[in-house]
Amino acid sequence: MSSQLFAPLKQAPAKADTVNHRLLVQAGFVRQTMAGVYSYTTLGMRVLNKISDIVRNNMLALGSQEVHLPALHPSEPWKKSGGWENIDVLFKIKSQTGKDYALGQSHEEIITPLMAEIIHSYKDLPKSVFQIQWKYRDELRAKSGILRGREFLMKDMYSFHATHEDFLSYYEQVKQTYLDVYTALGLTAKATEASGGNFTHKISYEFMVLTNAGEDDILYCDQCNYCINTEIAAPDLKTCPHCGAPLQKARASEAGNVFDLGTHYSEIFDVKFTDQNNQQHYPFMGCYGIGISRCMGIIVEKSHDDHGIIWPLSVAPALFYFVGIGDQGQKLALSTYDQLEKEFPQSAIVDDRDLSPGARFAACDLIGCPVRVVCSDKLGADTFELKLRGHDQTWTVNQAKLQLLAIALTAPENQTATLEQCIQIMNKIAQK
Amino acid sequence: MSSQLFAPLKQAPAKADTVNHRLLVQAGFVRQTMAGVYSYTTLGMRVLNKISDIVRNNMLALGSQEVHLPALHPSEPWKKSGGWENIDVLFKIKSQTGKDYALGQSHEEIITPLMAEIIHSYKDLPKSVFQIQWKYRDELRAKSGILRGREFLMKDMYSFHATHEDFLSYYEQVKQTYLDVYTALGLTAKATEASGGNFTHKISYEFMVLTNAGEDDILYCDQCNYCINTEIAAPDLKTCPHCGAPLQKARASEAGNVFDLGTHYSEIFDVKFTDQNNQQHYPFMGCYGIGISRCMGIIVEKSHDDHGIIWPLSVAPALFYFVGIGDQGQKLALSTYDQLEKEFPQSAIVDDRDLSPGARFAACDLIGCPVRVVCSDKLGADTFELKLRGHDQTWTVNQAKLQLLAIALTAPENQTATLEQCIQIMNKIAQK
Repeated sequence: MSSQLFAPLKQAPAKADTVNHRLLVQAGFVRQTMAGVYSYTTLGMRVLNKISDIVRNNMLALGSQEVHLPALHPSEPWKKSGGWENIDVLFKIKSQTGKDYALGQSHEEIITPLMAEIIHSYKDLPKSVFQIQWKYRDELRAKSGILRGREFLMKDMYSFHATHEDFLSYYEQVKQTYLDVYTALGLTAKATEASGGNFTHKISYEFMVLTNAGEDDILYCDQCNYCINTEIAAPDLKTCPHCGAPLQKARASEAGNVFDLGTHYSEIFDVKFTDQNNQQHYPFMGCYGIGISRCMGIIVEKSHDDHGIIWPLSVAPALFYFVGIGDQGQKLALSTYDQLEKEFPQSAIVDDRDLSPGARFAACDLIGCPVRVVCSDKLGADTFELKLRGHDQTWTVNQAKLQLLAIALTAPENQTATLEQCIQIMNKIAQK
Repeated sequence: MSSQLFAPLKQAPAKADTVNHRLLVQAGFVRQTMAGVYSYTTLGMRVLNKISDIVRNNMLALGSQEVHLPALHPSEPWKKSGGWENIDVLFKIKSQTGKDYALGQSHEEIITPLMAEIIHSYKDLPKSVFQIQWKYRDELRAKSGILRGREFLMKDMYSFHATHEDFLSYYEQVKQTYLDVYTALGLTAKATEASGGNFTHKISYEFMVLTNAGEDDILYCDQCNYCINTEIAAPDLKTCPHCGAPLQKARASEAGNVFDLGTHYSEIFDVKFTDQNNQQHYPFMGCYGIGISRCMGIIVEKSHDDHGIIWPLSVAPALFYFVGIGDQGQKLALSTYDQLEKEFPQSAIVDDRDLSPGARFAACDLIGCPVRVVCSDKLGADTFELKLRGHDQTWTVNQAKLQLLAIALTAPENQTATLEQCIQIMNKIAQK
């Protein structure tokens, strides 16, 4: 991206109720189209795509297949499942054909009848499919920036199993994978016991990230992994039921969830399979969500300072933010940017706007790319001044070392590097 | 993809009114969720993604930036533009908050007010943004498979210019790029004069692909490029107004369109820029659409035989379709598939289902991958029998040559290769 750079604003929006709303608008990642509905700029899409890719690769590694289900739904399956009456946030549409439609806020009602065409025998099981898709909720009150939208990007996965044991084993795998996904996004999530929803007494697990911008309260144990949503905790629960340590209370935001659906939807939509003995059974189902756009908001809530966003390497819209000072400096910034983009696509942004260095440094901090690269007439033709976001030190390196840094910081094993680890990498390369 | 292969059906759907509907369902690319609304399987998504990538890369080459605008719209801009009253296919939603929303069927009403925040000076122009996104039309009658849906995938691009000349120059570039895009998709499209829409007497251009499944009639000239939609042609038009040759009449499907919007939307949404002399003007706008899911349907209409779909190399869900026969044959198919997938991701499908070779050969033809690869106990451990879709000849090659073929057929310059050119490539590699 060059000066076509999709327009950061200088002013914070007047009505931002959360940090993510303020910073994402101010830095030009999103624009609010209406309450709870956002337009994503090129910058914003890059982050959404990076989060999506991390989630997608982890779901594929779980043996799940990606599909795309529609957002516009017939009303019949929703009426059959009871969702049409019971889910108050379900968007309902009266078509000019006279038919009723719903907008998808989850897809059990679509995937389960589809699976009835595919699952016939125990040999067809297990099956797992997922999608990454925009979903809709008719919220009475949309708030908290992109944390709670009327339109939001979700990964939803559905699995089908011949036995409850097989389901449980997959369920555990997914829970572990979810923790890995959040780690890869630079977040620490707690698998939290929560209500299983309307039709079951089973608990579900919510993946909670501690933040004051969240809408839930959780009780968690510092000594073991126990964590519970206060909604289902006994009012007098003060110590961990597993290890006895005192529980901590905190505000948190739900970055994902997993549900044991049992045979609830299989029965409603009459999906059956034949076992080895020619007996018919309903498959056991699980449902697993990750809020992609919500995770983007949570990352901003967790990782920012007074100057702007501090993106983790794994989801940053670009690794390098080039600022050229003086005629030769601008030329060097543009040519080095071009070269890096060829070798490492989407690794760089060049801010070649006709603004003072200070204004562009401020934009760099606001947007929050990990490494600022300054080229200037003063520094010369093969010298780049580097600075890490959130750290004061600067390093000067030549182009060969800049190249080495690009290799190091795009390496898969460094995507979750902390600031301290990045400093070590910088020192090591600068001293070579 | 292995035997998890997302379930081709053996039976054609009962109510398919077009070839694309019948074959895409039968081969397991899509499932009809309701009239005009489809679920896309992994196979279907691969084709949609390949078409999207070709379109995306061509729009980026035009200097346009990718964004993502919402599908859920506030009603206000639609009321302001008149679309709320005048567009009968606009989906309208009454929210439980009491507010009216619309579902996007085009995005002038969203992008123009957004641009008002970004365009201030002539220095901010030109600007072009595009998105690839699901759109919604409340069709009275959805039909023709994925050619005319209530939910469909579109690329829509919007450009903003300081002068009409600058707009016209971009408009011509886009028209040329569109022709290149269709060629890359294996389609021949004619830039066709058509009505500019409700608010203008200007003509627009529709990109028409000849097919009996289409919904338009066009008159075209064999001698030059002239082409006109019969809707706006004079009833007595029989010869080409450019070269005098007799015009041909044909049924066609609209694969895309470009509109000269003038300052219509800039004026409605009061987007203004200041010129060099500090005078304010409305920018000139263009709008440019390509129906991604519709193109997928048109490709099937244009490229199939009695056995199934024949995908062009550029958009095939996979290059190779492996069938292993016998124990060693199955093992070899799986291991070669694994190896190819590592080096050439998404280049292969292995049909390791417990079905007869004949049944799997039929599935291969139905799904329509360019190259069938048979491994069998009879052929031996380093011999692969190759057959091109739509051609009877077979070739036997070793693994090294299979590798060479993968390199050749994934090379950018061969993506629009005809069957004859593929035969030449096969011959050349086999004879090495």
